[in-house]
Amino acid sequence: MSDSVSIKIRLHNQDAVALGPGKADLLDAIVQHGSISAAGRAMGMSYKRAWDLVNTMNLSFSKPLVVTAKGGSHGGGAEVTEFGQSILTAYRDLEKKAYQSIAEDLEKITQLLGG
Amino acid sequence: MSDSVSIKIRLHNQDAVALGPGKADLLDAIVQHGSISAAGRAMGMSYKRAWDLVNTMNLSFSKPLVVTAKGGSHGGGAEVTEFGQSILTAYRDLEKKAYQSIAEDLEKITQLLGG
Repeated sequence: MSDSVSIKIRLHNQDAVALGPGKADLLDAIVQHGSISAAGRAMGMSYKRAWDLVNTMNLSFSKPLVVTAKGGSHGGGAEVTEFGQSILTAYRDLEKKAYQSIAEDLEKITQLLGG
Repeated sequence: MSDSVSIKIRLHNQDAVALGPGKADLLDAIVQHGSISAAGRAMGMSYKRAWDLVNTMNLSFSKPLVVTAKGGSHGGGAEVTEFGQSILTAYRDLEKKAYQSIAEDLEKITQLLGG
């Protein structure tokens, strides 16, 4: 029944969301595509939006999660730093643990769903 | 550091969200205020919106979570059924378990936040 529940974990830093489901997916997409614009495009968001999310992440943590290569903001590629990778892995682990922690109890509730 | 993380759990039933943070808060508010309109008002939502959420919950589960008293849809009061109470309690328990499951690991990540 795991498809009948979603858990969204958001880490807040002051007023900003430092990391959440969308930003984590964006990090995955940057790893896959090697650039912020391509990653954003793959997720159906504008370059500006993708860059804003990256910027928020980079400013929220003690070190950057994403660095861009030379060639201007639109030109070069981007990569997720080792630090960013470890944050992303830790976040995915949080998600897994949260799902696992409720799996058993969840079954009792979802059995009460009508559809 | 528990204030630096939020976990939102949503139970899906087909295309609808059967229960999530907003609907759970609405159930709490109906318990407190004894009517759907007063509960909605206390949460800053329209009567229509509050009723839509109640309707979705009632249709999503095998039995109603909220019943309205006589006097027309706007007139009488409303109460959360015993079934609704048990669903709400189970949902709050899921939230607690999810938070507890990640508390220790979370501390490691939040120490890496810059602000």
